[in-house]
Amino acid sequence: MRILGIDPGLRTLGWGVIERDGACLRHVANGQCKSGAGDLSARLLRLFDELTDVVSEYRPDAAAVEATFVNKDGAGTLKLGQARGVAMLVPARAGIAVGEYAPNTVKKTVVGVGHADKKQVQHMVALQLPGVSFAGVDAADALAIAICHAHHARTPRKVVA
Amino acid sequence: MRILGIDPGLRTLGWGVIERDGACLRHVANGQCKSGAGDLSARLLRLFDELTDVVSEYRPDAAAVEATFVNKDGAGTLKLGQARGVAMLVPARAGIAVGEYAPNTVKKTVVGVGHADKKQVQHMVALQLPGVSFAGVDAADALAIAICHAHHARTPRKVVA
Repeated sequence: MRILGIDPGLRTLGWGVIERDGACLRHVANGQCKSGAGDLSARLLRLFDELTDVVSEYRPDAAAVEATFVNKDGAGTLKLGQARGVAMLVPARAGIAVGEYAPNTVKKTVVGVGHADKKQVQHMVALQLPGVSFAGVDAADALAIAICHAHHARTPRKVVA
Repeated sequence: MRILGIDPGLRTLGWGVIERDGACLRHVANGQCKSGAGDLSARLLRLFDELTDVVSEYRPDAAAVEATFVNKDGAGTLKLGQARGVAMLVPARAGIAVGEYAPNTVKKTVVGVGHADKKQVQHMVALQLPGVSFAGVDAADALAIAICHAHHARTPRKVVA
């Protein structure tokens, strides 16, 4: 089973693809899409096109996105929402179901505790995916989300909820 | 010049197409896309597919979306952002530039004052587009946005900013 994890952001969208074979996880690829400059619709189109290329190239069977933490910065939430809408749309267009996981669930699954810092997450992602080299922090987060989905998709949902 | 106005929302996305010929405006079509039930990615895909059909059928030359009012309801802002991301992506994929107008600019342009209520806006939209029949309140708002773009696109931008 091949899983695409996505960490959406308007400026940078991280993605990571892993392969799950029974209990074994394997890194396939990771990267970061940059929306660049220009007006909002052009930036969203760039994210859409790049992520569509990722889905075409790696043909995942499943996808997962972090359930966004909503804070008091309304403008930031709106920007993130717009990128997230595009991020969830791309796998859906390819007929791939998109799982959503709370940030704490991702951390708990990957590190064992819900309030781990980024360094710890990256360390544990690297341990679980030998040989991986991160394209950036957002790509590392995307791989963590993919790992989270790999573990949860294998367990009946009612047990891990 | 044919203009597509879009009023994005996750549950209901309103759209309206008008034709501008010199100083004359003409109603072409309006409607509402419903995202229905199901998980978020499936709902966003439904909005994307329906709006893509609208763009294919009516082939607008320009598009416009209301610049979203960001409030303190983070969860609501995120939902709206996701729908708005899809709304801006669809015309961009067809090579159409997407204008953004603040809600007050739309009202000022259509009604003459920035704090008009929905009924007033609908009344003035109906006056400017004889024979129009609204598919719903969101479709009426979308037509107001299209009218706003029709007026502003004709004036050099620096004058109306």
